[in-house]
Amino acid sequence: MTLIVLNFKCYRESTGQEALRLAEICEDISRDYAVQMVVVPQVADIHAISETVKIPVYAQHVDGVGYGGFTGHVTAASLKAAGAAGSLINHSERRLKLAEVDAAISACRNAGLETIVCTNNVAVTRASAALEPDYVAVEPPELIGSGIPVSKANPSVIRDSVDAVKCIAPHVGVLCGAGITHGEDLRSALELGSIGVLLASGIIKAKDQRKALEDLVTGA
Amino acid sequence: MTLIVLNFKCYRESTGQEALRLAEICEDISRDYAVQMVVVPQVADIHAISETVKIPVYAQHVDGVGYGGFTGHVTAASLKAAGAAGSLINHSERRLKLAEVDAAISACRNAGLETIVCTNNVAVTRASAALEPDYVAVEPPELIGSGIPVSKANPSVIRDSVDAVKCIAPHVGVLCGAGITHGEDLRSALELGSIGVLLASGIIKAKDQRKALEDLVTGA
Amino acid sequence: MTLIVLNFKCYRESTGQEALRLAEICEDISRDYAVQMVVVPQVADIHAISETVKIPVYAQHVDGVGYGGFTGHVTAASLKAAGAAGSLINHSERRLKLAEVDAAISACRNAGLETIVCTNNVAVTRASAALEPDYVAVEPPELIGSGIPVSKANPSVIRDSVDAVKCIAPHVGVLCGAGITHGEDLRSALELGSIGVLLASGIIKAKDQRKALEDLVTGA
Amino acid sequence: MTLIVLNFKCYRESTGQEALRLAEICEDISRDYAVQMVVVPQVADIHAISETVKIPVYAQHVDGVGYGGFTGHVTAASLKAAGAAGSLINHSERRLKLAEVDAAISACRNAGLETIVCTNNVAVTRASAALEPDYVAVEPPELIGSGIPVSKANPSVIRDSVDAVKCIAPHVGVLCGAGITHGEDLRSALELGSIGVLLASGIIKAKDQRKALEDLVTGA
Repeated sequence: MTLIVLNFKCYRESTGQEALRLAEICEDISRDYAVQMVVVPQVADIHAISETVKIPVYAQHVDGVGYGGFTGHVTAASLKAAGAAGSLINHSERRLKLAEVDAAISACRNAGLETIVCTNNVAVTRASAALEPDYVAVEPPELIGSGIPVSKANPSVIRDSVDAVKCIAPHVGVLCGAGITHGEDLRSALELGSIGVLLASGIIKAKDQRKALEDLVTGA
Repeated sequence: MTLIVLNFKCYRESTGQEALRLAEICEDISRDYAVQMVVVPQVADIHAISETVKIPVYAQHVDGVGYGGFTGHVTAASLKAAGAAGSLINHSERRLKLAEVDAAISACRNAGLETIVCTNNVAVTRASAALEPDYVAVEPPELIGSGIPVSKANPSVIRDSVDAVKCIAPHVGVLCGAGITHGEDLRSALELGSIGVLLASGIIKAKDQRKALEDLVTGA
Repeated sequence: MTLIVLNFKCYRESTGQEALRLAEICEDISRDYAVQMVVVPQVADIHAISETVKIPVYAQHVDGVGYGGFTGHVTAASLKAAGAAGSLINHSERRLKLAEVDAAISACRNAGLETIVCTNNVAVTRASAALEPDYVAVEPPELIGSGIPVSKANPSVIRDSVDAVKCIAPHVGVLCGAGITHGEDLRSALELGSIGVLLASGIIKAKDQRKALEDLVTGA
Repeated sequence: MTLIVLNFKCYRESTGQEALRLAEICEDISRDYAVQMVVVPQVADIHAISETVKIPVYAQHVDGVGYGGFTGHVTAASLKAAGAAGSLINHSERRLKLAEVDAAISACRNAGLETIVCTNNVAVTRASAALEPDYVAVEPPELIGSGIPVSKANPSVIRDSVDAVKCIAPHVGVLCGAGITHGEDLRSALELGSIGVLLASGIIKAKDQRKALEDLVTGA
């Protein structure tokens, strides 16, 4: 089933009560259409959302540490306790050191959380796949929030990423990110070999978020 | 009233259900003794705790950004929506850039959150007070988690910090951190001119957390 | 004497042989006009430049560590040995943590290097002055490289910074940065109470660097 | 020919004049014994050393940026101009973000510099090899500076790294780091499939650096 991961970022339209409302819309979409939606709110919003909706809730970031004398870190254990099912790792707005990406994947695996590592080009996709997360999401940073879908602007980065991952770690799923908004973007992302999309602004900032999501999933 | 700020850090004994249980103990202490307790759990635990206890809940870290296209950040708005009343800033285990400390204080002020900036020596206390948070907490990093109270190991760092703050920004309260565990530590912290303490491991890792807190507040 | 600090950044026109050539131009300007020029090349260029010119050579960044088991750090001792006379600290393109700014100032003081801490607004200028570097350079980041001089776009940030520093640490000199290119920019910077300017792109990227510098200093 | 890479770190015994003296010893060793020595001094020391010795001089760190408006960065172009032949990347004391490791390798390739990416375990070695540097140096951080050679404490991390690299990018050379000091350490590193070693404290802090190096290379 097509995977649609919606990064809530830190927009006013997806924080607090608004985050809860948007998560419920995503749950409706997931139920009404043949897609698996994942919502990715801010950490402070995870508990309330995971108490309310049945679809998977991911964090936007997780630190690769276990229990211990750390302050201000986001531990996999605390995410799990709050009801999260997974986490983004290394999003272009929250890049991690190479060893931290590895540690975050391990910490999530230990805590029973799934992982999506975000990457910026084919070489970094190869490197990330070598660390064996559940998914990689390829997002050329210059296209994030641009409204120009990567599947149109630079289809080879997706195709080559899919090929590279198949070669290095075939069980890792490839998601297509950056500039995805419309049904045709999703369709071409799937045609290029990805199993779904990671998207954000195009939906969050839409006048009618529900309609934007419906257009996305029915256009496909 | 003496301020007792308990940093939960990321210990197993203060995550998820354990965090909730510990927050309830702190609420009891706050009610039963003439102290104002503040609990500082991980961000993912804030919502459940603030729904349960009446004492102030602070975050361990906040990023100095408003609403916007950020991923993996901890915004003041999301903390406020989850029920937080304030945040630590620049803890020694989560140091921020100078301009980020300033931005975090502003972001909290805009969102109606209180701020405690952690510092490591008198010069940095002076600099932090110049940014006008609500509180500074002086914690020489070599004493954090040591069990050796700063008020004994290095009383002049507290006394000189209190003097420096009085001079630069007299409305900023000074907290004494690092190695605080027992009633006598609290008492000498107050005698040195601080208005309370920031503590963590000494309580969290105690065999009996409630008893450790009672010893702390009655010993004073 | 007016202080003119030229940050070479990492431009092609100010790296390697080009850095050497530009430093010699700055030395000429310093000798021919009543100004004190300071050149700030990349660290790898400091040794060759300080062997060639007599004017002070500063680094663009220094880490607040002494001798020890560090890798990839820029120590004050190595800068001193290469002939540097000082360093920028906390430039907007190389922000440091608050405690690192303090440590870098101390490390430079111990090694006999002068320090210029870069700041982004009045509050951060106050905080930086409290750490007692030799100079602070106020540079609103949105104006860096813009060609719009801060002295015109936002004169109060300079005036208020000068006032704040006078109050907190009167021996700290205030430099005016961001968007400074022409003689009138320098003149108004001095009228606002600064003792000189920190500038970069406007000179480095000029068609004729020598002429740009002459216009700057004679226009004042 | 066996590759021996000596990281000078920031020790007093390997800064400024001492760095120059040590580089000359390394040149003697390289000439007198059948090994290829590479010296890795601080950036500020590269120019003077590369003017004096004929063996390759590497930087301890390089930033993945080209020419441009950057401040405090170490560009590949500036290293090349100062006479460097390559750089360490991602040393455990100077970890980089994943995308920065990739960018630093590209920047070095463009500038004609060789690259050694430091890694901390087999998974990160795999990921780094996927980025195709010239070499990876496997250094479990807990053994760095310990005097306990990785080849003894944890030989499988070297053997498995060699196997993983052979599989992913067979042209990438594997170096063995962490705790290497004596001839037998070098010998077992080579037996495990590495083509040389990356070492530091064991030589730099030796009473007689020349003798320590001779013991290393003749013991092999």
